[in-house]
Amino acid sequence: MKETDIVIIGAGPTGLFTVFEAGLLKLRCHIIDALPQPGGQLAELYPKKPIFDIPGFPSVDAGVLVANLMEQIKQFEPGFSLNEVAVSYKKTEDQQFIVETNRGTSIKAKAIAIAGGLGSFEPRKPPIEGIEAFEEKGVEYFIRDPEMYRDKKIVIAGGGDSALDWTIFLENIAAEVTLIHRRNEFRGALDSVEKVQKLKQEGRIHLVTPAEVVGLLGNGEVSAIEIEKEGKRSVIQTDYFVPLFGLTPKLGPLSDWGLDIEKNAIKVNNALDYQTNVEGIYAIGDVNTYPGKMKLILCGFHEATLMCQGIYNRLNPGKKFVLKYTTVSGVDGFDGSRKAAEKAVVKSIE
Amino acid sequence: MKETDIVIIGAGPTGLFTVFEAGLLKLRCHIIDALPQPGGQLAELYPKKPIFDIPGFPSVDAGVLVANLMEQIKQFEPGFSLNEVAVSYKKTEDQQFIVETNRGTSIKAKAIAIAGGLGSFEPRKPPIEGIEAFEEKGVEYFIRDPEMYRDKKIVIAGGGDSALDWTIFLENIAAEVTLIHRRNEFRGALDSVEKVQKLKQEGRIHLVTPAEVVGLLGNGEVSAIEIEKEGKRSVIQTDYFVPLFGLTPKLGPLSDWGLDIEKNAIKVNNALDYQTNVEGIYAIGDVNTYPGKMKLILCGFHEATLMCQGIYNRLNPGKKFVLKYTTVSGVDGFDGSRKAAEKAVVKSIE
Ligand SMILES: Cc1cc2nc3c(=O)[nH]c(=O)nc-3n(C[C@H](O)[C@H](O)[C@H](O)COP(=O)(O)OP(=O)(O)OC[C@H]3O[C@@H](n4cnc5c(N)ncnc54)[C@H](O)[C@@H]3O)c2cc1C
Ligand SMILES: Cc1cc2nc3c(=O)[nH]c(=O)nc-3n(C[C@H](O)[C@H](O)[C@H](O)COP(=O)(O)OP(=O)(O)OC[C@H]3O[C@@H](n4cnc5c(N)ncnc54)[C@H](O)[C@@H]3O)c2cc1C
Repeated sequence: MKETDIVIIGAGPTGLFTVFEAGLLKLRCHIIDALPQPGGQLAELYPKKPIFDIPGFPSVDAGVLVANLMEQIKQFEPGFSLNEVAVSYKKTEDQQFIVETNRGTSIKAKAIAIAGGLGSFEPRKPPIEGIEAFEEKGVEYFIRDPEMYRDKKIVIAGGGDSALDWTIFLENIAAEVTLIHRRNEFRGALDSVEKVQKLKQEGRIHLVTPAEVVGLLGNGEVSAIEIEKEGKRSVIQTDYFVPLFGLTPKLGPLSDWGLDIEKNAIKVNNALDYQTNVEGIYAIGDVNTYPGKMKLILCGFHEATLMCQGIYNRLNPGKKFVLKYTTVSGVDGFDGSRKAAEKAVVKSIE
Repeated sequence: MKETDIVIIGAGPTGLFTVFEAGLLKLRCHIIDALPQPGGQLAELYPKKPIFDIPGFPSVDAGVLVANLMEQIKQFEPGFSLNEVAVSYKKTEDQQFIVETNRGTSIKAKAIAIAGGLGSFEPRKPPIEGIEAFEEKGVEYFIRDPEMYRDKKIVIAGGGDSALDWTIFLENIAAEVTLIHRRNEFRGALDSVEKVQKLKQEGRIHLVTPAEVVGLLGNGEVSAIEIEKEGKRSVIQTDYFVPLFGLTPKLGPLSDWGLDIEKNAIKVNNALDYQTNVEGIYAIGDVNTYPGKMKLILCGFHEATLMCQGIYNRLNPGKKFVLKYTTVSGVDGFDGSRKAAEKAVVKSIE
């Protein structure tokens, strides 16, 4: 079992920045996220789009903001359990928590910070009979690790940015890439649409439109799919079938944790430290609600900061919390690194 | 009289970012600050030092953060009254406010946002008899506009970064620069100390240490100063005397505004929109206090954002506040400019 100070559910911007503020207070963190990469909505829904209301950035692409946050928290060595959904928690006798994931990981921590955004991102599945039986046996709803597809045959289905971008990316890695979409029109960045057009023309990918995947074949593992194009059925040999039909966030398991829920979000005490009705469990960022709540990235940063102070106070009763400016005190990472401003000198001039 | 939607007292990071959030809601702002430049503590106290806890910046120099904020709010054309202290306010019959400054400027607005940090920055004055009579008649406590000193003689007093940096800067502009300090040792960035040393050695500035300015001479305007060095007095001809002995923030006039004050800060309703006990007057950033308050830049950003929503709701009773993502809706400036993400295309691939 992993042990840490704060277990964070959600690797969106709020969860990531929590690691930094906790680190300043010498608290260690472990993050769980259902997605294969950190960044939450920013990484999953609009990585290449600019955001204009992050203070100090007249414009910053969502993916760049996530990369910057990862760089900023690096010193504090967060643990990550990606591709895992936090499903349940229990309290231990020593007033700690154990959070469990759908893949059997257990993490013990002194506090739980739910930074779960709109919920854990779950794939929209195509209505193909028997698809569940093939999940992780050739059927994948995310590209978790592109290397998995090296020299394999892959069929991607979908008509949006993810389908386009993964087609482009995997063309270099896989033995054969087929992109299937039920319309001729794709919806995405102009640049991506044009790249796929070019790959098609150069014969480097197969494009099958308008068509739908209607069946999966294979003995235990996927070996082929059946498609329907303009009323006619045919079979395509493949090692993998990856339908990229978008993700929907589901508060899911968290809604059974005995937390006060309102408008599909977790109610917190915003007048202090964003604690929920369960002592030791906090909710920050898009996942929480309170009067005047705004679901903005910059608000999650503030909430994370005040929450860390609250957790510190709870873990150190009676000890006075002393705010230190990073500029003045520097930042000491758990990895032994130190960031600090150059010191002033006192020097005589003759 | 100037008119605006929100009059902001304080051009620190909190006041500046307010302009952006207000602008998104189509509210215009005018900012008053006692200092000659925007940026508050960051610009005045540590412009060249790195800050490590601004979310998304593993490190950012304070001066750069201020420049970025100025760039970010440009679209919303804030008004500025710099070098002016907000001293009083009155309520008008139409439930608006008029704020007055020490220089007689009046600004009418629908709401007051106090983003006054630790208070208005006021210079520490040297104990020279009759100095007040020469203020703005040769005696200056800030360098407001370097061009004022072109081809003039200037005496700077002080031993810290400001004295060093302005000596270096003005050497290029003024006819003659003299730097006086009561010790031989200066305290500042190594680089600045070394530059001043070099200017001294090349005979491009006069350095007088250890010495103190003890008197001012002149008929209406400064024409010379009297100094004491190692027990001996002498006179130096000069057009300007600029003592740079640091600034101390004073809540000053704001403490008589009938606002609830606690620990030298203004109490606000942090459970909603950072309104003070006076309806229509809000306090955000370092200047406010509430349980768990942290005097951090990132907290001011959040407080500014929720306050703007509060002001919007107050000015538009009954109208539903609708949050728009900048990424999705773009940002339309009052100057006619528009920032927007590239639109997705819908395009067929053949
Ligand atoms: C198109 C678009 C444009 C936007 N533009 C802006 C903008 O311009 N400015 C702005 O401020 N905001 C914008 N937003 C909103 C912004 O993305 C959110 O406010 C932000 O992502 C919230 O961050 P978060 O960390 O709280 O949650 P999220 O980013 O939603 O991250 C939450 C993470 O928690 C994970 N999770 C949840 N439950 C579980 C569980 N039980 N187990 C494991 N993992 C779980 C999810 O998988 C997810 O990765 C935009 C949103 C969208 C969709
Ligand atoms: C050396 C140092 C290092 C720091 N390091 C960090 C750090 O690493 N991270 C961090 O988050 N914070 C840090 N801080 C704190 C940070 O600077 C403050 O939190 C921040 O400046 C607060 O911003 P503000 O806009 O609320 O107020 P301020 O920056 O204080 O600006 C307030 C402005 O209001 C003006 N004003 C006040 N009253 C009046 C009036 N009546 N009329 C006209 N003008 C008025 C003042 O002149 C001032 O310019 C540091 C501070 C110092 C001194």
